[in-house]
Amino acid sequence: MKGIYYDGKGAVYREDLPMPVPGEGESLIRILCAGVCNTDREVLRGYRPDFRGVMGHEFVGRVEASSDPSWVGRRVVGELNAGCGHCIYCRTGREKHCLERKVIGMDGKDGCFAEYMVLATHLLHEVPPGLPSEEALLTEPLAAALEIPKQVHMDPDTRVAIIGDGRLAYLIASVLQLYGTDLVIVGKHPDKLGQFANMGETWELEQAKRRFDSPDDTFETVVEASGSPSGLELASGLVRRQGTIILKSTYAGSVDVDMSRFVVNEVTVKGSRCGPFEPALRLLEKGLVKLLPVEFFALEDWEEAFGSGAFKAGFSVDGKGGQHGRVKAGHPY
Amino acid sequence: MKGIYYDGKGAVYREDLPMPVPGEGESLIRILCAGVCNTDREVLRGYRPDFRGVMGHEFVGRVEASSDPSWVGRRVVGELNAGCGHCIYCRTGREKHCLERKVIGMDGKDGCFAEYMVLATHLLHEVPPGLPSEEALLTEPLAAALEIPKQVHMDPDTRVAIIGDGRLAYLIASVLQLYGTDLVIVGKHPDKLGQFANMGETWELEQAKRRFDSPDDTFETVVEASGSPSGLELASGLVRRQGTIILKSTYAGSVDVDMSRFVVNEVTVKGSRCGPFEPALRLLEKGLVKLLPVEFFALEDWEEAFGSGAFKAGFSVDGKGGQHGRVKAGHPY
Repeated sequence: MKGIYYDGKGAVYREDLPMPVPGEGESLIRILCAGVCNTDREVLRGYRPDFRGVMGHEFVGRVEASSDPSWVGRRVVGELNAGCGHCIYCRTGREKHCLERKVIGMDGKDGCFAEYMVLATHLLHEVPPGLPSEEALLTEPLAAALEIPKQVHMDPDTRVAIIGDGRLAYLIASVLQLYGTDLVIVGKHPDKLGQFANMGETWELEQAKRRFDSPDDTFETVVEASGSPSGLELASGLVRRQGTIILKSTYAGSVDVDMSRFVVNEVTVKGSRCGPFEPALRLLEKGLVKLLPVEFFALEDWEEAFGSGAFKAGFSVDGKGGQHGRVKAGHPY
Repeated sequence: MKGIYYDGKGAVYREDLPMPVPGEGESLIRILCAGVCNTDREVLRGYRPDFRGVMGHEFVGRVEASSDPSWVGRRVVGELNAGCGHCIYCRTGREKHCLERKVIGMDGKDGCFAEYMVLATHLLHEVPPGLPSEEALLTEPLAAALEIPKQVHMDPDTRVAIIGDGRLAYLIASVLQLYGTDLVIVGKHPDKLGQFANMGETWELEQAKRRFDSPDDTFETVVEASGSPSGLELASGLVRRQGTIILKSTYAGSVDVDMSRFVVNEVTVKGSRCGPFEPALRLLEKGLVKLLPVEFFALEDWEEAFGSGAFKAGFSVDGKGGQHGRVKAGHPY
C-alpha cells in the first residue's frame, strides 16, 4: 500500500508498504483522510529518533475488519496512545500516561499517513453519521483543547487569557468561549489574531506586557499555547496571584524559571496534553466549534503538505475538502 | 523599648526604640513570646534590602490598647500581611497577595522582636484560654502547612511524599497525617528523619532516587519543603503522571526546569505560602499537632537565637519554655 514512512532520517513516500494485519482486540481501518500536526513536523526534526514506521496520528477512517465484528463498516476516529493494560496508569484511567505505551505514528506503532492502519479497537470512537469526515478530522486536536476544562473548573464568570494565535490556540478559544468565559487572546501576528475577533478581545504582545503591573488586568486562568518558551514568561506576568497557568506548549530543552515567584504568588502551573474524544465529537456534531479551512493534499505530495502554511493541512482519499475545506490536490490515496 | 532592629545592613539590639502608637483600626500588643523563622535569617542575608524596622513576625501577645475595646486584655496571635483594602486581591479574600501590602518585620511595618508592636485589629486571632503561649507560637508556621489542604483536596486514600526534614516539613507531616494520608518523608539527614518515624515511612535521598523508574512507587501528591532548588528535581522524579507537586520552598534566583516534562506528564505545580490561622489554633488547642521543643532566648541574645540549631528558637518574656520548651535564657524583655 501507499504511505509516508519515517526511516530515522526523514520521510519517504512509498508504495510498497505491507498491508497491516489486525491481531486480537484490533481493527483494520481504511483511512479516509488524515491531518498533519506540528508533532509530525517535529518527528521530521528528530523529536522521535528511535521511531521507524508510517507517520501520522490524526485520521478519519472506516473499519474494514475487526476481531469485534460489530465495528466493521463504521466510520471512526481513534486515540493515539495504546497502553500496556496492566500498570498503575492503565489501571487508573490514565492509559495515555502508560510508561510502556505505543503511540501511533511516533512510537512503536504505524500511523495513519497510509491507505490502511491497524489500531486497538478500544481506542476507536464512531463518527456521528451527519458529521463530514474533514470536520471529524479535528477530533484529536479539539480533544486536546477539551483537556483544559477536564482538568480545571472553568468558571464562566472569570477572564481567561490564551497566549498564542496558532491552530491549537484557535481550537482552545473555540471551546472556552462556549463556556461563557470572558476571553482575551494574546498573539504576535496581527493577521492571525484577526481570526479570533468574534471569540474574544485580542491583544498584541506589547499591549499585553503593558498590563503586567495592573492587578485588575490580570487573569485567574492563563492558557499558554504559543509553542514558544517565552510564552511561560508572558503567562507569569499575566496570571493573577493564586491563579492558574495551563501549559499546552511543549518545547525541547529546559527553560530558566523563577519558581520562587510561583510560590510567593501561589500560582498553579498545570501541564495539559491529549484530551477526551467523545465531547469533541459531540461539539463537532452540533456544529458548535468554529473551524478554519483544511487544505488537502495527496500522499505523494507530503512535502508540500508539511510545508503548508494553512490553518490545517491534511491528506484526503478523494481530494475533496468538504464544505470547510479547500481542495488542493485531488489524488486519491 | 527593647527590640531587634534591622538597619539595612544587619540586626542591632536596641533599648531606645520608640513605643508604638496604635491608629484607627489597630491594636497595641505586648509581646509574650516570639519565634525565629528562616525568613528572619533571610532578612539578615539581604532578602529585604529596603526594609528598616523591628524584625520578626511570629508572636503571641496580649492586647493592651485597641480602637476596638473588646480586644483589650485578650491573648492573641496575628497575621503578617496587611493589605490596602481596596485592590482586586483585598476585595476577593486574598489580602495576603495585595501588591501594596505591608508585612510585619519585613516590609513597611515593624515586627514582633520587641516589647510591643502595633497590628491591624482585623489580623488578630484570639488564643484559646487553655493553649500555652509557647505552643500558640507555632500558629503561623502551622497555618502555612494548613495552606496545603486548603489548596488541594487531600484524598486520604493516596500516598503523599514530603521532601524535606526541617521544621516546615515536620509541621506539614504533622498536619497531613491527621488526614489519614499514607505519608513518605524524604530527607537528607538520618538524625532529623528519625523525628518523623511515627508519622510515616522515611526515605533517605538515594533510596528515593532509586524509585524514580518504578511507577508504583510514585506519588499522586509531592510536597516540596526542602528549601533547596534540588528539591524540585527530586519532586519531578517522584510525582505520578497527572499528579501534583506543591512547592513550599522559596529560594533566591531561577532554576533550570524542563517544563515540557510537566506538560507531557500533565503534572500540576502549585505554589503555596501563608495559610489560615483559625484551623491552626483549633488543631493546637486539641493537642493534635506533634510539636518539637522550642529554645527560648532573651532579646539581647538574638545572635545566639538566630544561630541556634534547635527545631525552633524564640524569644520569651519570662524566659520559660513551658511544657514543650527548653529554657535557654531567663531574661525578660
